[in-house]
Order: sequence, then structure tokens, then C-alpha cells
Amino acid sequence: MRVSFDELHDTLQRALITTGMEPDRAALSARLFADASRDGVSSHGLNRFPRFMRGVARGIVDVRARAGRVGAHGALERWDGRRGPGNLNAHDAMAAAVGLSRAHGIGCVALGHTNHWMRGAGYGWQAADAGAIAMCWTNTLANLPPWGASDARVGNNPLVIAVPRDGGHVVLDMAMSQFSVGGLAAYRLRGEELPVDGGYDRDGRLTRDPAAIEDSGRLLPAGFWKGSGLSLVLDLVAAILSDGHATHEIPRDPEQETDLSQVFIAVDPAAIGPGPDVNRLADAVLAHLHTGDGDVRHPGERTLATRQRSLRDGVLVDAGIWTSVKSGNWEER
Amino acid sequence: MRVSFDELHDTLQRALITTGMEPDRAALSARLFADASRDGVSSHGLNRFPRFMRGVARGIVDVRARAGRVGAHGALERWDGRRGPGNLNAHDAMAAAVGLSRAHGIGCVALGHTNHWMRGAGYGWQAADAGAIAMCWTNTLANLPPWGASDARVGNNPLVIAVPRDGGHVVLDMAMSQFSVGGLAAYRLRGEELPVDGGYDRDGRLTRDPAAIEDSGRLLPAGFWKGSGLSLVLDLVAAILSDGHATHEIPRDPEQETDLSQVFIAVDPAAIGPGPDVNRLADAVLAHLHTGDGDVRHPGERTLATRQRSLRDGVLVDAGIWTSVKSGNWEER
Repeated sequence: MRVSFDELHDTLQRALITTGMEPDRAALSARLFADASRDGVSSHGLNRFPRFMRGVARGIVDVRARAGRVGAHGALERWDGRRGPGNLNAHDAMAAAVGLSRAHGIGCVALGHTNHWMRGAGYGWQAADAGAIAMCWTNTLANLPPWGASDARVGNNPLVIAVPRDGGHVVLDMAMSQFSVGGLAAYRLRGEELPVDGGYDRDGRLTRDPAAIEDSGRLLPAGFWKGSGLSLVLDLVAAILSDGHATHEIPRDPEQETDLSQVFIAVDPAAIGPGPDVNRLADAVLAHLHTGDGDVRHPGERTLATRQRSLRDGVLVDAGIWTSVKSGNWEER
Repeated sequence: MRVSFDELHDTLQRALITTGMEPDRAALSARLFADASRDGVSSHGLNRFPRFMRGVARGIVDVRARAGRVGAHGALERWDGRRGPGNLNAHDAMAAAVGLSRAHGIGCVALGHTNHWMRGAGYGWQAADAGAIAMCWTNTLANLPPWGASDARVGNNPLVIAVPRDGGHVVLDMAMSQFSVGGLAAYRLRGEELPVDGGYDRDGRLTRDPAAIEDSGRLLPAGFWKGSGLSLVLDLVAAILSDGHATHEIPRDPEQETDLSQVFIAVDPAAIGPGPDVNRLADAVLAHLHTGDGDVRHPGERTLATRQRSLRDGVLVDAGIWTSVKSGNWEER
């Protein structure tokens, strides 16, 4: 079923206010959740909201905490997330990185001791809306076996890279597993096979069956050894720069996951002065990508189409989850 | 066969001096080529040297040109590579990024109109040797079909991320194709199949046969749509920040490839002041990675072992290429 963006947003905001979150912060957090569902990423929008509320009740998330700077040197800042709401912390950190990029050309905020940022691409869109090129990533609990092992030892550490463009920003949001945990569930709920192997079953055979991979926990890194190695270095950089926790120090239970480490980098392409016409350059690159055979998409392309449909016809929601959220039932389904 | 590192280096340096390259620049360029072979990446070391020399003869590479700053704002600089030697330009750009990171915490140099940087990991090791965390990437000619297409429209745009560590830096160097062009050739020369599918044959079937993929030119992006999307955004960011060329503007013939765009970012983890003990943190992450079943390696691990063997027993060289290089024969083999 579909509900209007405003109804979705206001319902989430009301729920957040009941936790003691300040109204303006609740409005922003609700918008970030609603934006995710609006853009087709309900796994980190409405569907993730009950777990967020359970985290608040459990003390994982401190709704009154604000991330703040604990160290700085020029264009580089270290922030303590103080276990505040993950999406608000990430939004504030990216806003600060964009501000640093205006002053210094490039800026970096490393955020430790924060919570799950929900949908990473949102911070890419945020920076691109402000005219910045951006890159950000987070570590996660260990949910991915590194290449060569059968047990989860690295996180799927999503990486976001965004390029602003008048005709629609180009925003990549990629987890280091070939399929995200939420992605596997989405295929299973639709009763679909994965288009390529996504992991191993319990007997160690490669499979396209999402349920078998959820059961074994043996997700495949994107690009095999490549996603595995990239995940490791992203974790290292985030933990070092934020003085926060690395994946192996993060509680393994998704209901207890906290103390994440994140990095937000923004670059102001206009800072240097006369340079390329960013729109013309990006348009030319995309035109070349789309010239020829095949069904080729660029990162962010589907997002815009989904967003337009959601704003016109309403945001697609799971009826059961929507009913639960409206009635304030946060139990695990 | 194996030759001593010094003999390899001096042979390459003498050859470079014959082109008119200044002796100190020839020594540095020769070292970067020799380092690649020493570390087991001969595809971008000795084996790539004849093509470099052909590029000099053809006017693709201007051995006397030096990359220089053409714009700056704080911690962000734009450099023009002036078609100088790619490895020297990249080395100079990374050195400048490290310098900027000392002053500003983070620094970025975007380098346009440069030539092939040869082995990207070298600039990661360079930054890590200076105590910096670093990230750099380059675009390339179009040599990779994006996910969904059958003809090459994006580059394999290698990405390097390095973390300094007393016990051996962690250095990731990944091309966006599952196997690099040089990697496919190496498997073919050893008469080996690829360990996983690496691309399509001429009939559009996925295959592990390196020669069939070289023949079709249809390499598979690492992580399918993920490597494809990452390649695109890396190209966009490099071309925009450097005011240089994007992949679709780069000559398609490897012998003519030039005017590449690159980005070098360095972060000084000590800039902020008291933070984590980087070595202890990195050692703990790696210890956790290596605990348990399977043969798990971290990025850079094999490099150090290969380097030690090369310095002890000599650097492994292809006898035919070595003979050609010693006799100054730069013809394509």
C-alpha cells in the first residue's frame, strides 16, 4: 500500500517525540527515515524504524545526545557521537564536512561512538544538494566472512560516493557484501532468486537462494577478495580517525549493535575557482555510459524515478509494518 | 630468472637517461618500476617498461615535463601533469598531498593530463611510509563493459587505500574489473584458469578462461553492478577535480593512452593530537581477521613476503623481457 510522504513523516515524528527527542530533531530524524522509504530503500526507512525504537528503549540510542567535536586540526575533525541517533549524528557530521570543504577545499569529519546511520546514500544526497562531492562510509558489526573464511569477521561497511549534478545527483551506495542483509530479506520476501551468487548455503555451496544465505550467515563479499579487502581498510580508517571502535569490538547482535565508526569527506569543486563545468562534464560521462546496447543504469538513476513516483502516488509501505508503527508496536516481527 | 634489485634499477635508470630524462628523475622513475617488480607486480614493473619507452618515443610521455599546481584552495590543489612520466607525476602529487595533510589534517591533489601511473599501490606505500593514511585512484581508457552492456565504456580505474603500520602497512590496490588486464595476461602466461568467473567469451558466456576474455574484451566488473558503479563515480570525481579528461575522452588504444585524471588524498592520523595507538588498533584488527579457519590474507600481506624474497634472492624477471630491456629493444612482444 502507499501512504503520503507527509503522513509517513508525521507519524514517525510523533513516535520519536514520545521518546523525549526534541521536536526539531524528531522532525529531521523522521525526514531521514521517510526519505529512505520514499527513495525505495524501505529496509533502512520505515522497516528499520521499529528496531530503532527498540534501541531507544534498551538504552542503545540516547535520543537527547548530540555528536560533538572532540579534536580538530584544520580541515580534519574528530567527533564523538555519544551514542546519539545514528541518522542525526551522520547528518550533522556531513553538514560539518561540507562546511569544512567550503573553508579548506576539502573537509573530513570522523565520527566515533555513533549508532547505525540507516540509509547511507542520504548523506551523499545531502552533500550533493549543497554542491559538494562527498564520500562517506561506516563500519558495522561483523556480518561478512572475509574471502577465504566461513565465519563473519568483517562488516559490510557501506561506502557512499556522491557527485552533484543539476539533472540528478550521481550517488553510489554500496555495501561490501554482494547483497546487503536487507537486500537478501527483500529478495526472500518477494520470493525471488538472486541474479548472481550471493553467498554460501550451510553446506558451503555457492547459492542464489537468499534464505539459504540468511540461514548460513555466509554472505559473499562483492568482488570476492576485493570487497573483503576494501571492507577491512574502511574499518581500519574509520576506527583510527574517529578513535572509535573497529568491527571486531562491536556487539554481534543486531539488536545491540552500537559504537560504530564513520568517516565523512566533502570536497567543494568550486573552491579552486575556474574549473570544468561540472554539469556538462557529468552529463557527457553519463551520455557516453548510456550510449549503446544493454540496460545500463548509473548510481542514483533509479532513486530519482522512485522518488518521483513516491511523491506523486504515495510512498510504498509494508501494510503490517505500517499498522504496527501507527499503533506504537515496536516488537520484532 | 632473478636479478638483483640494484641491477634491475640501474638498467632501467640508464635506459631512462637515454631519453633525456634528468638523472635524479630517472633514478626515481627507475626505482618505482623496479619496486613494482620487487613487490611481485611485474605487469606494472619491468614488463610495462618497454611500452613506457615506446610512449616516450611516440611523444605520449614528455620526459622533461613536471606536474605543477594550477589552482589551490586551502587543503585542495589542482595540478596539471603536462603529460609527464606517469609514475613521477603520481609520486610528486602524493608527496604534495601528504604535505597538505601535515598542514591541514587532510590534503587532496587532483592531477589531470598525466600518464599511466604504472603500479598504484606504490603511492599508498609512499604515503604510509610517511605516516599518512592515503587514498588515491586513477581513471583509465575504457576497458570494462559496465554492468548490463557488452562493450567497454568505463575504465577499470584502480583504487588504492593505505594505512600505515609498523608491522607492515595495509595497502589495498584494486582495479574495478574482477581481474586487471595485466592479471588476465599473467594467468594466461602461467597456463592457469581464473579462480572465479572473470568475464565473458565472444559468445557471451561467463568464463574462467583468461585468453577468451582477452579475446572478447568483456571483463566482468568486480561485484558486477558494484564495481561498475564505483568505476563511474571515481572517473567523474577525478575528471571534475582535476579539470582533466574523463574515460570516454581518453584514446582507446593502450599504446596511445594519455591525459589521465587522478586523485590523491592523504590524512595525517596524528594531526588531531592524542588519539588511538594506530599500531595497536591495526594489529588488533588484523589479529581478529586472521583468527579462525581458512586462508585469509590482508591487503599488503603478500607484498611484504614477496618483497623480502626479492631483496634476498633477486627480483623475478621474465628472461625474454629482461634481455630486450638490457639491449634497448622496446618493440611490442
